[in-house]
Amino acid sequence: MRAVRVHRYGEPPSIDQVPGPVVTGPLDVLVEVNAAGVCRTDLHIVEGQWAEKSGVSLPYTIGHENAGTVREVGSAVSNVAPGDTVILHPLVTCGLCRACRAGDDSHCENSAFPGIDTDGGMADLLLSNARAVVKLAPDLAPADVAALADAGLTAYHAVRKAVPLLYPGTHAVVIGAGGLGHIGLQSLKALTAAEITVVDRSVAALELASQLNADHTVRSDGGQVNAVLDITSGKGAHVVFDFVGENGTEADGVAMTRDTGSYFVIGYGGHVDVPTIDIISREINIVGNLVGTYNDLDELMTLAARGRVTLRTRTYPLDSALDALADLDAGRIPGGRAILVP
Amino acid sequence: MRAVRVHRYGEPPSIDQVPGPVVTGPLDVLVEVNAAGVCRTDLHIVEGQWAEKSGVSLPYTIGHENAGTVREVGSAVSNVAPGDTVILHPLVTCGLCRACRAGDDSHCENSAFPGIDTDGGMADLLLSNARAVVKLAPDLAPADVAALADAGLTAYHAVRKAVPLLYPGTHAVVIGAGGLGHIGLQSLKALTAAEITVVDRSVAALELASQLNADHTVRSDGGQVNAVLDITSGKGAHVVFDFVGENGTEADGVAMTRDTGSYFVIGYGGHVDVPTIDIISREINIVGNLVGTYNDLDELMTLAARGRVTLRTRTYPLDSALDALADLDAGRIPGGRAILVP
Amino acid sequence: MRAVRVHRYGEPPSIDQVPGPVVTGPLDVLVEVNAAGVCRTDLHIVEGQWAEKSGVSLPYTIGHENAGTVREVGSAVSNVAPGDTVILHPLVTCGLCRACRAGDDSHCENSAFPGIDTDGGMADLLLSNARAVVKLAPDLAPADVAALADAGLTAYHAVRKAVPLLYPGTHAVVIGAGGLGHIGLQSLKALTAAEITVVDRSVAALELASQLNADHTVRSDGGQVNAVLDITSGKGAHVVFDFVGENGTEADGVAMTRDTGSYFVIGYGGHVDVPTIDIISREINIVGNLVGTYNDLDELMTLAARGRVTLRTRTYPLDSALDALADLDAGRIPGGRAILVP
Amino acid sequence: MRAVRVHRYGEPPSIDQVPGPVVTGPLDVLVEVNAAGVCRTDLHIVEGQWAEKSGVSLPYTIGHENAGTVREVGSAVSNVAPGDTVILHPLVTCGLCRACRAGDDSHCENSAFPGIDTDGGMADLLLSNARAVVKLAPDLAPADVAALADAGLTAYHAVRKAVPLLYPGTHAVVIGAGGLGHIGLQSLKALTAAEITVVDRSVAALELASQLNADHTVRSDGGQVNAVLDITSGKGAHVVFDFVGENGTEADGVAMTRDTGSYFVIGYGGHVDVPTIDIISREINIVGNLVGTYNDLDELMTLAARGRVTLRTRTYPLDSALDALADLDAGRIPGGRAILVP
Repeated sequence: MRAVRVHRYGEPPSIDQVPGPVVTGPLDVLVEVNAAGVCRTDLHIVEGQWAEKSGVSLPYTIGHENAGTVREVGSAVSNVAPGDTVILHPLVTCGLCRACRAGDDSHCENSAFPGIDTDGGMADLLLSNARAVVKLAPDLAPADVAALADAGLTAYHAVRKAVPLLYPGTHAVVIGAGGLGHIGLQSLKALTAAEITVVDRSVAALELASQLNADHTVRSDGGQVNAVLDITSGKGAHVVFDFVGENGTEADGVAMTRDTGSYFVIGYGGHVDVPTIDIISREINIVGNLVGTYNDLDELMTLAARGRVTLRTRTYPLDSALDALADLDAGRIPGGRAILVP
Repeated sequence: MRAVRVHRYGEPPSIDQVPGPVVTGPLDVLVEVNAAGVCRTDLHIVEGQWAEKSGVSLPYTIGHENAGTVREVGSAVSNVAPGDTVILHPLVTCGLCRACRAGDDSHCENSAFPGIDTDGGMADLLLSNARAVVKLAPDLAPADVAALADAGLTAYHAVRKAVPLLYPGTHAVVIGAGGLGHIGLQSLKALTAAEITVVDRSVAALELASQLNADHTVRSDGGQVNAVLDITSGKGAHVVFDFVGENGTEADGVAMTRDTGSYFVIGYGGHVDVPTIDIISREINIVGNLVGTYNDLDELMTLAARGRVTLRTRTYPLDSALDALADLDAGRIPGGRAILVP
Repeated sequence: MRAVRVHRYGEPPSIDQVPGPVVTGPLDVLVEVNAAGVCRTDLHIVEGQWAEKSGVSLPYTIGHENAGTVREVGSAVSNVAPGDTVILHPLVTCGLCRACRAGDDSHCENSAFPGIDTDGGMADLLLSNARAVVKLAPDLAPADVAALADAGLTAYHAVRKAVPLLYPGTHAVVIGAGGLGHIGLQSLKALTAAEITVVDRSVAALELASQLNADHTVRSDGGQVNAVLDITSGKGAHVVFDFVGENGTEADGVAMTRDTGSYFVIGYGGHVDVPTIDIISREINIVGNLVGTYNDLDELMTLAARGRVTLRTRTYPLDSALDALADLDAGRIPGGRAILVP
Repeated sequence: MRAVRVHRYGEPPSIDQVPGPVVTGPLDVLVEVNAAGVCRTDLHIVEGQWAEKSGVSLPYTIGHENAGTVREVGSAVSNVAPGDTVILHPLVTCGLCRACRAGDDSHCENSAFPGIDTDGGMADLLLSNARAVVKLAPDLAPADVAALADAGLTAYHAVRKAVPLLYPGTHAVVIGAGGLGHIGLQSLKALTAAEITVVDRSVAALELASQLNADHTVRSDGGQVNAVLDITSGKGAHVVFDFVGENGTEADGVAMTRDTGSYFVIGYGGHVDVPTIDIISREINIVGNLVGTYNDLDELMTLAARGRVTLRTRTYPLDSALDALADLDAGRIPGGRAILVP
């Protein structure tokens, strides 16, 4: 089969002919990949930023946002059958540790992450397992949802955690209305009645946010903290979702949070640096967010099937994977996601 | 191996020589049974009360409160190894349905219940699976904890659900201080600072409750509702745990519950019958409780290992299983539990 | 001033000239009534059904759904000022008991209920207090929201409590799409992404439900339980809201609830009668609901100001109060609410 | 009456004869002070550290941990009467803002803080209000509990928030076993079954922690993070309570927290500085904590009445207030609290 493989960090991957994976374990699920999202993390992998963290041996196949059709299943698989269309949770989990048993499988103690630390889905076939596959409703096409598998899931997960905090009359701020942020915005509209302000440097991103029914948009031009305070009667927002997490959004995010409010960190790259007296005198919370659970992904697919969360995508044939990566790197896919299709 | 098997409902089971179960599935775990609790439900099974509900084919082996030593494991089992001592969660669950993934595996959509609807643990060997086995701390002997596998788990689960309702200054009532109730009482002492009143018909049961540090005991002699109201300044308890669920405790339990409080039903046999105007004008909750999750059982084992929850047991050799059943039926094991040992 | 007063149970009230109430206490708020909802409970009061429960001395003024303009305030009132338009929480609460301090003021231990147990708002002036008045946004007219003060608040409160149970992919059932039910439906749409089925005997009520974007409507013609089971893959709904609570909806509601689900009782008149074995084997919850908190009402006003919750109303001059009561009694105000205006 | 008043920052306060406060407002409560805690914050006030933050005009009376006997009440006070012994919540709150109504009165939008921004309780009389007074059980002496009014309340509040996170099998770490920390430890023992490790620089503090049944004690000598990791199988604690919040405990606290765990900040003076990638990849929470609610204080009094939380105190006559302040400043009250009595 074909597979987009990294051979050496710092060099473009190549599209190789390799033997396809085969079902050996009782919970294995072999999936024909119908759609593989191309993500900024893929660029970082190629650059070598993940080399140490993933510990993966080269060459290997990238691609961690996948959807497709089940081709073969192991002897103990009861939840999907060949022919089912599925989206793949990014983690292959054990089902036996406390986290898996507690509804927190994204913190499985024995997980693998295809496309990061083992072969991923920019290929014709991908080997996953029964605990990772979410069946798709008949009207959801793999290419329409693949990019929700990781980026979308992360945004949804953060919003889902914040639902109890966002009753009518509360304010939510979304910092960064890019790939994750605009899924976050749509999830907020679907799950809460909060008043939503979107903050971004890009006018185009803010226009998209307005189309998606953000209540307010604020250009990040130096006056963004004051603008949010103005919108919130000087008090700040009940929840601030920071989809950037670097270049100053960390300080902005804390400053935009009201007393007893919560600053949700989703993006990364920078530092949160707050005096303890501010943390206690304002009794604020700083909340980390990472991927989401299998059930989160299942819920997100429900929203997608009902048209409550949609993505802008541009498809490329798998054979043009390098073009897709180059276009992403060059900023030629504004406001959308590249999806590889067979 | 030996196995206590029911051949015909209404007749005593017999101790048969049968072939032992063997590991065939990838998640199978074969356990040498070191301790099997004898429970009132076993008597009901023998009487035929569960015939229709379980749908099991006779003959089959009873015993649903089991602890022992792992002898052999399937190819995909990673959480236990031969030689480990374990207690068995009563349900063998799938790990793939939403309930299993949401931390609610006692509502697994594809579970089996050894000793109820498939061969159980009153035998030398029991076939279970990786999702059912909780490893025991070195200082916990199987015979000391086996009876916690089902009865104890049910009591713990109900208390665990009520923890957020039982802050200091609240009142809890435990109706029925028998096998489940006194585990419930110990769990309440371990997990909350609530003031606890135990209600029972039996003076001996109330004495045991006092030894276990119940704050108040009330004889169930007709004045029990008023007695609880007196203890609670006329308002009733924040949570009432009804471990009986029949013969009038249902009405008592609702009457002992304060406005906005919760009546937890654990025992069964009777009816809850309440006018809707009382449910709404008092804004009360009626809460069902069934078994508990794997993680609940794991937590209960932590309490047992720390000496916070203890059981009174009387051991019988497996060969004397019929004596144990007869003693239980005749009320000759007061305040304690019969445990079959090899 | 004018006041609609009950002089003798069983006889129509009369519109009397009486001295207006005056501010005497430090937290008193005197409100000029701009809108008073006419409610089925008013008919029941006139019939004498509440005589014993309220213990009120006749004659007295009815009207418990009020909105208007502040005219005068006591010395310790800091949250409203003369000229403010307000909606009145149905209870006048103490602010000092544990319930008031815990965000549960609808269970205040020292409350009064104007229009039920003291003079109400079918009059030119109403005496309330600082803890009962919610300021209205400038674009909310008293006549548009008065009926939300009690009926709407009750429906909203029940939905608000259920939000954590109603994640995407869950099903909610609304039994009874009348005055409360259609506020409940709109609240569900605003606060959750659940799939909603409305059950009613009336085709007109179901048509209104469809206009308000119910996902499914089911005629209550004997097959309603099976219809809900069909819609929910045979499992039942995660939450059933019963706005009727009599004439068989109690049994229907329990039967429509899925295992581990919750049956919310809001309407009343009948009985909930369930075997304890069903409560425990299905681990279901039966949840009472009564009015709502001040903060609930404040949140509901936010939804009203944003157009997420609307009411159909027909206004009558205060002098025609008896006509409004008669029209309500005769069923001549279908799908709407009568509002008395000066 | 006598009053310990600050006349100039940087100079010792003096004990003056001043006119006593009088009841003027309807919710006023005049309390004869039977016990006033002496706190490190009092030293900071005298030094002038709070000058800007409090904005108080000199001279004024310090003392923010008070208990005593009600002498006179305003016209609208219904919850206490002259002769009642009470402990005073540190804040005098409004009862009308959303926070007060939501059970979060420590974030009242219109509060006063006697002893900080208005006259406090190191005096014969103190003016408070109905929303601040918690009635004491008959067997609780004001001098035994006064120091729980602020320091104890803060520790209890943090523990109370963490209860849902601390099920059996979890680990809690208490950094700093001084005045707040050992109340935190006792609260943890009363409210949870968590395994508790106490970390401190002082051997004496650790010995006290052991007497109070800490499961482990760790000397803070440079190896404290590794020691906690060793105790927690390399994973860290589910909740870390940092009662110090400076001098490196901030970094220690984050490092001692397990993935998905929570770092509770209670002490202050330093900075929390964490890379966003650590916050998200570990999905940790950083949680501020400030004072506690009225209901928290009421619950803490329940624990005190039951002997579950105790304090070591040394009493001084009010006339020796300057000695008490000097002894505290010189470290001559180890492991205990100075209490001024009439």
